[in-house]
Amino acid sequence: MSTKTELDPVFNPKSIAVIGASRKPGTIGNKVVENLIEGGYKGKIYPVNPGADEILGLKAYGTINDVPGDVDVAVFCVPAKFVLDSARQCAQKRVKGMVVISSGFSETGNRKDEEELVAIAKAVGSRVIGPNIVGILSNSTKANASFAPCLPYPGKTAFITQSGALLIALDMATFVRKMGFSAMISNGNMADVDFADAIEYYDEDPDTSCITLYIEGLKDGRRFIQAGRKASKPIVAIKSGVSARGAAAAASHTGSLAGATKIYEAAFRQAHVVPAHTIDELLNRSQAMSMQPPLTGDNILVVTNGGGIGVLATDSAERYNVPLSAAPSDLQDALRKCMPDFGSAKNPVDITGGAGLEGYKGAIAAALKHPWVNGLVVLYCETAVTSPPDIAKGVIEAIKATNVTDKPIVAAFVGGERCDQARSVLSDAGIPMFDDPDKAMSVMSGLRQYARFLDEGREDDFKPHKDVDTKAAREVVAEVRKAGRTSFTEPEAKRLFAAYGLPVGRCFVAKTEDEAVRLAGEIGFPLVMKIVSPQILHKSDACCVKININSVEEVRENFKTIMANAKKFKPDADLHGVLMQEMAPKGTEVICGSINDPQFGPTIMFGLGGIFVEVLKDVTFRVTPISPHQAMEMLPGIKAFPILQGVRGEKRRDQEALADVISRLSQLVYDLGDEIAESDANPILLYEQGKGLKVVDARVILKKK
Amino acid sequence: MSTKTELDPVFNPKSIAVIGASRKPGTIGNKVVENLIEGGYKGKIYPVNPGADEILGLKAYGTINDVPGDVDVAVFCVPAKFVLDSARQCAQKRVKGMVVISSGFSETGNRKDEEELVAIAKAVGSRVIGPNIVGILSNSTKANASFAPCLPYPGKTAFITQSGALLIALDMATFVRKMGFSAMISNGNMADVDFADAIEYYDEDPDTSCITLYIEGLKDGRRFIQAGRKASKPIVAIKSGVSARGAAAAASHTGSLAGATKIYEAAFRQAHVVPAHTIDELLNRSQAMSMQPPLTGDNILVVTNGGGIGVLATDSAERYNVPLSAAPSDLQDALRKCMPDFGSAKNPVDITGGAGLEGYKGAIAAALKHPWVNGLVVLYCETAVTSPPDIAKGVIEAIKATNVTDKPIVAAFVGGERCDQARSVLSDAGIPMFDDPDKAMSVMSGLRQYARFLDEGREDDFKPHKDVDTKAAREVVAEVRKAGRTSFTEPEAKRLFAAYGLPVGRCFVAKTEDEAVRLAGEIGFPLVMKIVSPQILHKSDACCVKININSVEEVRENFKTIMANAKKFKPDADLHGVLMQEMAPKGTEVICGSINDPQFGPTIMFGLGGIFVEVLKDVTFRVTPISPHQAMEMLPGIKAFPILQGVRGEKRRDQEALADVISRLSQLVYDLGDEIAESDANPILLYEQGKGLKVVDARVILKKK
Repeated sequence: MSTKTELDPVFNPKSIAVIGASRKPGTIGNKVVENLIEGGYKGKIYPVNPGADEILGLKAYGTINDVPGDVDVAVFCVPAKFVLDSARQCAQKRVKGMVVISSGFSETGNRKDEEELVAIAKAVGSRVIGPNIVGILSNSTKANASFAPCLPYPGKTAFITQSGALLIALDMATFVRKMGFSAMISNGNMADVDFADAIEYYDEDPDTSCITLYIEGLKDGRRFIQAGRKASKPIVAIKSGVSARGAAAAASHTGSLAGATKIYEAAFRQAHVVPAHTIDELLNRSQAMSMQPPLTGDNILVVTNGGGIGVLATDSAERYNVPLSAAPSDLQDALRKCMPDFGSAKNPVDITGGAGLEGYKGAIAAALKHPWVNGLVVLYCETAVTSPPDIAKGVIEAIKATNVTDKPIVAAFVGGERCDQARSVLSDAGIPMFDDPDKAMSVMSGLRQYARFLDEGREDDFKPHKDVDTKAAREVVAEVRKAGRTSFTEPEAKRLFAAYGLPVGRCFVAKTEDEAVRLAGEIGFPLVMKIVSPQILHKSDACCVKININSVEEVRENFKTIMANAKKFKPDADLHGVLMQEMAPKGTEVICGSINDPQFGPTIMFGLGGIFVEVLKDVTFRVTPISPHQAMEMLPGIKAFPILQGVRGEKRRDQEALADVISRLSQLVYDLGDEIAESDANPILLYEQGKGLKVVDARVILKKK
Repeated sequence: MSTKTELDPVFNPKSIAVIGASRKPGTIGNKVVENLIEGGYKGKIYPVNPGADEILGLKAYGTINDVPGDVDVAVFCVPAKFVLDSARQCAQKRVKGMVVISSGFSETGNRKDEEELVAIAKAVGSRVIGPNIVGILSNSTKANASFAPCLPYPGKTAFITQSGALLIALDMATFVRKMGFSAMISNGNMADVDFADAIEYYDEDPDTSCITLYIEGLKDGRRFIQAGRKASKPIVAIKSGVSARGAAAAASHTGSLAGATKIYEAAFRQAHVVPAHTIDELLNRSQAMSMQPPLTGDNILVVTNGGGIGVLATDSAERYNVPLSAAPSDLQDALRKCMPDFGSAKNPVDITGGAGLEGYKGAIAAALKHPWVNGLVVLYCETAVTSPPDIAKGVIEAIKATNVTDKPIVAAFVGGERCDQARSVLSDAGIPMFDDPDKAMSVMSGLRQYARFLDEGREDDFKPHKDVDTKAAREVVAEVRKAGRTSFTEPEAKRLFAAYGLPVGRCFVAKTEDEAVRLAGEIGFPLVMKIVSPQILHKSDACCVKININSVEEVRENFKTIMANAKKFKPDADLHGVLMQEMAPKGTEVICGSINDPQFGPTIMFGLGGIFVEVLKDVTFRVTPISPHQAMEMLPGIKAFPILQGVRGEKRRDQEALADVISRLSQLVYDLGDEIAESDANPILLYEQGKGLKVVDARVILKKK
């Protein structure tokens, strides 16, 4: 059964029972019944209360099973201790959805009852919303099945939130902002229905054109990414709680760099979710996306009656990475006709303060009809001689007259109360209007980002590399497990990487000085020698790495030094010997690594090595697995990307080889996601175009079992 | 005469004449008279119009000289062509201030009349505001001497703006935002009175506690910095027009990196001006600074009734670089008494949705009285069971009861219309309230930044280095000028730098191969050899730099190669010979440089060399001259600063030596500000603590004369 079919009776119910309905004002059981009535709910309302015959003028029932006919949704307003019994009765009644407002479940540590609740529902194909929620509100059915004060201002955005308090506050804010919702869903503990379900449902809801999320955490990050990527409607989300987490315990570089911010950034990117960082940005971007088409190209034209706000808009456009370019000359010619001589037809188009309504109309018509223009921003600075609501009406007329509907239009009016009136006028006509040009530009950049997601397509293009040896990889893991360790030595990690085709170079372990000399002969000079010990992860810190070794004498001398230093550094360390490997030619230092994120599972990181990682933390993440194509797209995500393009006379680095390695590592940590906790290929030496790369050092940590 | 004494009759006039007053509704001359009357202006109003006896009920005068008694301000509403004559009459009348609304001056290219206007005024000690402005508005005298529709909502912020359109729009916005102004000054072309004058004036105005600027450009950047730094009140400013400027023509690295953004960032920093990036941020920060004391420490406590907005506030706090820390345990104990068991006494302090007014009151009292708390943020998420205006009143009561006035308090209420009502209540009590926790945190970070400026003190601690030889420096310049050049050769640039004590190392120019060999003997190996030619600025590009030269044979060979390569690279280049210099030991590459900014004059840059400058553009600027102490403070302004602190086992770099060099270079380019257009000391090799640094290459470009 599709999510849509399954959740339809829940989010769009024909009948609602209120379990724990009450006659007592001020109780949730009373408020929910009242809200359903006052909201003008179109379906049947069944108050359920063993001690009442009638509540707020409606016939009440002793138990849900006394209700005649089907019940789509039961809203639970009873204390936690009565929830399971009520759920059993609802299951008997074959209620399709249990909206559990009641708190006292996993949020207070009571996981058992929460699991039991879901089990009861699942057994009969019923779905649970919550527990620990405000309820659900739908403008489509006029169902305010919640204790929020009223249905929100009407709109085409579905809002799904883990914070019930925020739902109530924003419900009321919609009237001030003239920014409405089709539905508001409080999903609380997400015991059953989560963000992915809601995305799938509202993606098919005819009354919804944009999906907005307030996320505190995800239970199944991968399902979220899949649901987001498959959706055909824009999704905007804010992730709360992104402050730096204490990652001091991480053993790998990658682990120490993986904060919630960076990983959610990657996940949103992969889920095709447009991010927001403040409540304001969340609502503004949602409103625009629910009303306006995506911005399919880079050419935004700004029309303004004030030079000052025009320049501020230009500054914001740059900040949001949607910089303005000058309009083409034929468009400038057309625009010049709509303004006095001292106006400007470049971009921003300044029709000047005196120009008034006719100037706006002319400029809008010329702009929208011109093929160069991908999107339009209308700015207005309130003046003493123009009326904001009239300007708003004129703007709408001009837009309608062009019949252009595939270019996004947003407005920013700076001024007083009459600008607030203009907001209602514009909003009713589907044009989002803000009080600061900066917000208009933020919104345009969101519409541009969404268009880029659409260009990428909804399918994930990852196809597993065939030439990998999962069996060999698992054998290395088994060996390390057998030795009772979770840390790999460098040769073990390299064997693991090699099984997935990562270029680790030839290396051997010498247990004795003589063996070292023999191996040196096989490998050839110059050589690198390093200690092999599961207890010495940071080999340089122990002075156990020697490079550029060119003679048998040096091999002997260094063998002794390395073993001695290792013993000094950690007397009880288990020394496997000295790793002998060819010395890779100099190249650009790069790092790839992975961590197994609690919400998203195996997640891969890429950055430039050395200080770029350590000092600048200039890294980017993706949830695995990713294709080489996706890996290529990851590279410009770091600030130091120009280095990979070639700087200071250097040739372009072999980005294709790097992308291939990132993709292979992503597949490895994905395939072995049950085993690998963290990994680093660090440094990787990356050479110029066509010359590939070399993994010089490797580190792998297994999950604790 | 102090600015205050001089400008007092202008910004605070006892009598106002309106030149070009008109009976015709819709004209500016009519509007200004009407505005003065309707605003309730406390002084005398004299309409001046040769053809009218009476205007809007007031006696009109044929010329300004017909007016009986003194006139403080004349507001010019006449066309540009009549302005000079009117100004002469005003001068005769000894009018103190000419507020020239009329446009048609330098903004249209007519500089001559604008200069004449100022000359006429200056001759009699009169000051000019404008021309090309909306006028000036003062809530102190109730003078709306402008064509803006009305006096703004009352407040303690003086707003000075180059955009008149923005003045009008924000004038009206004050009523919606409940964010008022003591005065609004449109300064337009700033022919005479500029931002520095206004800062000096309003810094002494008893009705003003914060100065807010909208800046498009400055005529005298240095005066602005001085005025800002000396002010005793907070200044908040937005600079519009910061998009990347085409700096392709710059010959130095420094020149190519100097955009308006970075230089204004530095200038604001030095002027102790808190920056804003959007209109919203400008108004929010201004409101808070006009009402609240600075945030003198890092400990912000957040009290909230909703976990969600609490977490969002935490995220914002990190983004604005004022991260939250947990409250000390005794404060937590006190706070716990104000909340139910499931609340949180950490930070944010979650008194929970049910807690209501008493919870807020208790938490606020406990927080404000505790010495750990430096500032308080009150968050409120509108609920169905609490009333926002009542919460607001309770918050105010609780604050008043503590008698604490030296800790800043800001609020964010998320919700609907009743939250808007609460905003009025809070604003009237001097507590700024916003609709998004993010804005409260932005404002707190502004208050923190202001407190840091106060810590620095208002005096500039620059004292000229005594051991510099300005005469020698000017001699080098004269030589280059005499040779008809503006580009220095490396030895010339190094001589210039050496005159100010920069460590450039020993270097000599060899004109012949034999001379090169002789000099090599004097300097000693290893050596560096480079071409010396005013036409070859980027010597490496021409393959004219050879390093690590260790023998006489190599000297001979490289001399030939360098000369040949130079001839090949630029056949008509004037080759002075080959520079012979000791090869500096490896160190951290650093760059210092300068440009002569059109608004701020000689301005110095610092960054790490190589890719940090070229790829990451990780640089920071200061307007010169700066003390070594100010230069030290500049270093953490780059992202790569940890490298100077010592990373990867390296010792701390010699930051003191670096700061000394930056300070000396700043003094050099300041002293020779009439001559030097751009300079680079690049690379500088910086060694570990106590081991100093070495300027390895130098470049100087003179101003074109």
